[in-house]
Amino acid sequence: MTDPLPISFDDIAAAARRIEGVARRTPVMTSRTVDSLTGATVFFKCENFQRGGAFKFRGAYNFVASLAPEVRAKGVLAISSGNHAQGVALAAREFGIPATIIMPDDAPISKLNATIGYGAEVLHYPRMHEHPDDAAKRIKGTRDVTFIPAFDHPLIMAGQGTAALELLEEVGELDIFLAPTGGGGLLSGCATAVRAKCPGARIIGVEPEVANDWVLSLQRGERVLIEPPETIADGVRTRQPGVNNFAQVRAMVDEMLTVSEGEIRSAVRFLVQRMKLVVEPTGAVPVALLFSGRLGDIRGKRVGIVISGGNVDADVLCGILNESTTLDG
Amino acid sequence: MTDPLPISFDDIAAAARRIEGVARRTPVMTSRTVDSLTGATVFFKCENFQRGGAFKFRGAYNFVASLAPEVRAKGVLAISSGNHAQGVALAAREFGIPATIIMPDDAPISKLNATIGYGAEVLHYPRMHEHPDDAAKRIKGTRDVTFIPAFDHPLIMAGQGTAALELLEEVGELDIFLAPTGGGGLLSGCATAVRAKCPGARIIGVEPEVANDWVLSLQRGERVLIEPPETIADGVRTRQPGVNNFAQVRAMVDEMLTVSEGEIRSAVRFLVQRMKLVVEPTGAVPVALLFSGRLGDIRGKRVGIVISGGNVDADVLCGILNESTTLDG
Repeated sequence: MTDPLPISFDDIAAAARRIEGVARRTPVMTSRTVDSLTGATVFFKCENFQRGGAFKFRGAYNFVASLAPEVRAKGVLAISSGNHAQGVALAAREFGIPATIIMPDDAPISKLNATIGYGAEVLHYPRMHEHPDDAAKRIKGTRDVTFIPAFDHPLIMAGQGTAALELLEEVGELDIFLAPTGGGGLLSGCATAVRAKCPGARIIGVEPEVANDWVLSLQRGERVLIEPPETIADGVRTRQPGVNNFAQVRAMVDEMLTVSEGEIRSAVRFLVQRMKLVVEPTGAVPVALLFSGRLGDIRGKRVGIVISGGNVDADVLCGILNESTTLDG
Repeated sequence: MTDPLPISFDDIAAAARRIEGVARRTPVMTSRTVDSLTGATVFFKCENFQRGGAFKFRGAYNFVASLAPEVRAKGVLAISSGNHAQGVALAAREFGIPATIIMPDDAPISKLNATIGYGAEVLHYPRMHEHPDDAAKRIKGTRDVTFIPAFDHPLIMAGQGTAALELLEEVGELDIFLAPTGGGGLLSGCATAVRAKCPGARIIGVEPEVANDWVLSLQRGERVLIEPPETIADGVRTRQPGVNNFAQVRAMVDEMLTVSEGEIRSAVRFLVQRMKLVVEPTGAVPVALLFSGRLGDIRGKRVGIVISGGNVDADVLCGILNESTTLDG
């Protein structure tokens, strides 16, 4: 007998009802250039336009909205390299409750400032020296607040899955679905939505070569912990798949593929120059795979991609853009 | 007896039919941050996502599509600082006809490269030393091709007006409408659409303080020629309103307001950092006015703004972004 999976399609549908009118129904963009380069029809679900600048608000709001009012009122606590921090801070503000956010000491300034701007209290931990779970336990201590996991929770997974659900509602059937993968919150939720609506779709998670905890974990059949990865894609610097995410992804996802740091940078540049989209490196990870050729022959296929976020520091963005001279129309 | 105006609403409706399925129906974006800062409800018509990276494709395609086939087949010629060049090159490619584009010697590299990329032949003229009309006449010489004006023609004006028509179709009534103004192609067309659909709307053209040919012309009641302006907004470096545009704008537009170079740069930064939109300085001109306070009390008003384009060189964009440190979500 198999354990039931952490989430079902119904959980995503329920999350969609909770976030309706609060989260933004982000636009789906297309590009004749991309279609002509790939031979496919590619749909970009632009979560860089989501509130807080990334998909994370979906799961965070779904979680906070599901708390009992008297529990919620005491406040929430989260640990995050950035976008989850902003998502939780914003969700807390929507409910008028206090939020404490623990961030790594090398979090992007943009994400730090935005989190403070949403009214959260921010504390730091040493990312290269302490596992985030340990830091969260240490700092939470005896505080009577609710911890909101960044990815390893059914309510978070279901919330993130609403991004794919909206995409499918807008464009219909997909043959291939790609999402960037850190802890696996976005991928596990979205894969569940895509599998329910397009059973035959090829569903692929994408991570940086240097942050390949998912590839290793799926190979070994268990959650592998890697050293803190040095990737420009700060949203997928997680060291290990989540427990719930791993179970869900094993059941729903076809494969896990990786991209190089150079491919990620090129993809950011393409998105800015050609599609006029400000996308953070993590958001460009699946686009990097699209252009890598490693998807094989995708001519004639309908491809859905989640652009996960747009929160990038000016120095990082300009470092990438200045590798080329122009932002061609 | 008054001369009839160069265009009517019907011309815009006809242009809309011609460009349907060829030009992109660009998305309209909103921002809770903008609405909260201004007290208004602001709709951004994002022509930075238009084919060729700017609204110019609308007018260029409308013009080329209206030519007799045997005339069209001989090819087209245009003079432009950039976006009109790309619009004409792209429209010509759609019809499989040759395009020659005359660009100023200091045109942005991005626009130069893109124009060449669309298959056009590019020639240069000295912007600081020759009036564009003279350059166009000199270079056209006896070539048997059709000259496509950048703004001073009813078909161009009507084509550009489709941007406002789509905006109105999507969001309904507007109280205020803002567009950047160079030669007046975009403003004259859009104002005509807005005036027809929202007769009481306040319609405002916006130009840089240092490129105030429209303000001077409306004050004097005649088309004033200014020195070549040194504004970062390269799309509105025109030296004089067009003849047709001037007549149309005088009848349709309420006022002309200006913004400083610093205000334009701040607006670009805001659009990138907060709205995740890559916008060229010209596209940020009306957004700069929105934030200037010079619109007076706009609380509760529905404001439509055309973001005219997104073709900006990396060095210009990064020069602007690096005046601040972060791209806050």
